[in-house]
Amino acid sequence: MTSYGILGTGALGGYYGAKLQQAGMEVHFLLRSDYAHVKQSGLTIVSTDGNFVLPEVNAYDSVQQMPACDVVLLALKTTQNYLLPQLLPPLIKENTVVLVLQNGLGVEEQVAAIAGNERVLGGLCFICANKVGAGHIHHLDYKAIVLGEYAPQYHAQGISRRMEQLRQDFAQADIPLELTEDLLLARWRKLVWNIPYNGLSVVLDATTAEMMASPEIVILVRKIMEEVAAAAAGYHRLISPSYLDKMLDHTSKMKPYRTSMKIDYDAHRPLEIETILLNPLKSAQAVGIKLSLIPMLYQQLKFLDARNTNTKSRKD
Amino acid sequence: MTSYGILGTGALGGYYGAKLQQAGMEVHFLLRSDYAHVKQSGLTIVSTDGNFVLPEVNAYDSVQQMPACDVVLLALKTTQNYLLPQLLPPLIKENTVVLVLQNGLGVEEQVAAIAGNERVLGGLCFICANKVGAGHIHHLDYKAIVLGEYAPQYHAQGISRRMEQLRQDFAQADIPLELTEDLLLARWRKLVWNIPYNGLSVVLDATTAEMMASPEIVILVRKIMEEVAAAAAGYHRLISPSYLDKMLDHTSKMKPYRTSMKIDYDAHRPLEIETILLNPLKSAQAVGIKLSLIPMLYQQLKFLDARNTNTKSRKD
Repeated sequence: MTSYGILGTGALGGYYGAKLQQAGMEVHFLLRSDYAHVKQSGLTIVSTDGNFVLPEVNAYDSVQQMPACDVVLLALKTTQNYLLPQLLPPLIKENTVVLVLQNGLGVEEQVAAIAGNERVLGGLCFICANKVGAGHIHHLDYKAIVLGEYAPQYHAQGISRRMEQLRQDFAQADIPLELTEDLLLARWRKLVWNIPYNGLSVVLDATTAEMMASPEIVILVRKIMEEVAAAAAGYHRLISPSYLDKMLDHTSKMKPYRTSMKIDYDAHRPLEIETILLNPLKSAQAVGIKLSLIPMLYQQLKFLDARNTNTKSRKD
Repeated sequence: MTSYGILGTGALGGYYGAKLQQAGMEVHFLLRSDYAHVKQSGLTIVSTDGNFVLPEVNAYDSVQQMPACDVVLLALKTTQNYLLPQLLPPLIKENTVVLVLQNGLGVEEQVAAIAGNERVLGGLCFICANKVGAGHIHHLDYKAIVLGEYAPQYHAQGISRRMEQLRQDFAQADIPLELTEDLLLARWRKLVWNIPYNGLSVVLDATTAEMMASPEIVILVRKIMEEVAAAAAGYHRLISPSYLDKMLDHTSKMKPYRTSMKIDYDAHRPLEIETILLNPLKSAQAVGIKLSLIPMLYQQLKFLDARNTNTKSRKD
């Protein structure tokens, strides 16, 4: 049986970890502020698929206490990734793989530098879920993960045996894993959504539904998506206009959603702008793709983030 | 002696009108919400140049009661300009000139269509002033006006005799008028400041000082200024990079200032985005100049404005 280590038991790590444990897997959860509560009371998942409680989970407040695992799910906020050199090594044994579930670009390289290229996979989570309290997760919609192998320069790796094995585990937990031969293409496709909606939700203080109700913002989102597609094309990853339209249409039909970046902003937590905006911008720049709107969005977010986290520390 | 009619007794119209009256001119003020108060108590100016009170002013709540004047100062919010066909005609007699003191593009054409091309002059006000209460104006900094003749297509008109006469009147009131031969160039130069600072102050909820303290926002402001200069160049009005630098430097050294658009936003009043952003965008488009950042700023403001005025009406 595969053992799972969950690095970061927020909405994402908490939901997927709980689903895997519920399906009978051995799961170990790393927590920080929620440790005492979860150690005591376990995890509660309120979900459109059915609510459930795990009264007992393997909870840890330090990786030193955790066993090395077959699969590490990296589900921290990327703003915590400076901790990876301390967090990852204790969890790694022979054949451990690290599955990077974070958004944006640049994380697999960072994990590979610590754990080795051959251990790294990337996953893109298509899920609407929020942590609403200690050990308490609301799963609102979707849950699929697009999974791909990492390799230096993101050379497309095809479908590996271990990807198939992971798909079987997750299928037992009722989580569909879609296997991709090209992780970088999957990352850019995810950014088509994440850059405009996460970014603008903070700048405009708006839900997805509010944004999609404005003809001007729909135009703006489309233009930002086109810049993401242009950057991807710089890496020979082609994202068609019809995919952009599909994302817009999809979002229009979604339940009103407060993006993860907006949730972080409202909680005065630092924003994941480095991985979600800055690294894609640098990637575009590195291959000579000139962007305008994403830099403007980044600059606006950088300003708002600095003031917002500053406000927090003044309040505390 | 020249008689003056002030269309719109806000910060701008109130300040300049009061200065002209204080210097001995005949001045007639059109008011709306402040009418009763100003009729009763006059105007109070708190200014770095010295405070003064005009206990009695010629106050009107309707243009029908006002005499036609030699000079009409158009100092309404441009969001009120749909009223011009009613407001202007009663104030016009032989030789009346209308001095458009509003920001942005497209207003002189509108006034000319009502009053005739030959009556229209434009003025760009370089002033930091806020209305802080009924008939109560705070003048914080600067006061100069750049004045130019309007002509169809904004063909540069040189310096006219009546411009010289206006300069003399205003000089008596201690208001420097700088005469320009090219009104359109002056308008675009003013937009170099107004588009980025007014726009971003609303989107970022920030004063000029807060914006200038952020390296990212300084870069963004500069980029937006470059787009304004590019649009101006489409009309053969050249604005040099050193002018942009001067504006940035100037703003860094200014007292922290809440822009007029931000003041309107905070008061849940409609924003002057049509004249300050949309008309310049349309002008650029008309001559094939492609812009990116100003459209994005416009789209963001359009969203925020719609929600903000909507919130107001729900509250009222």
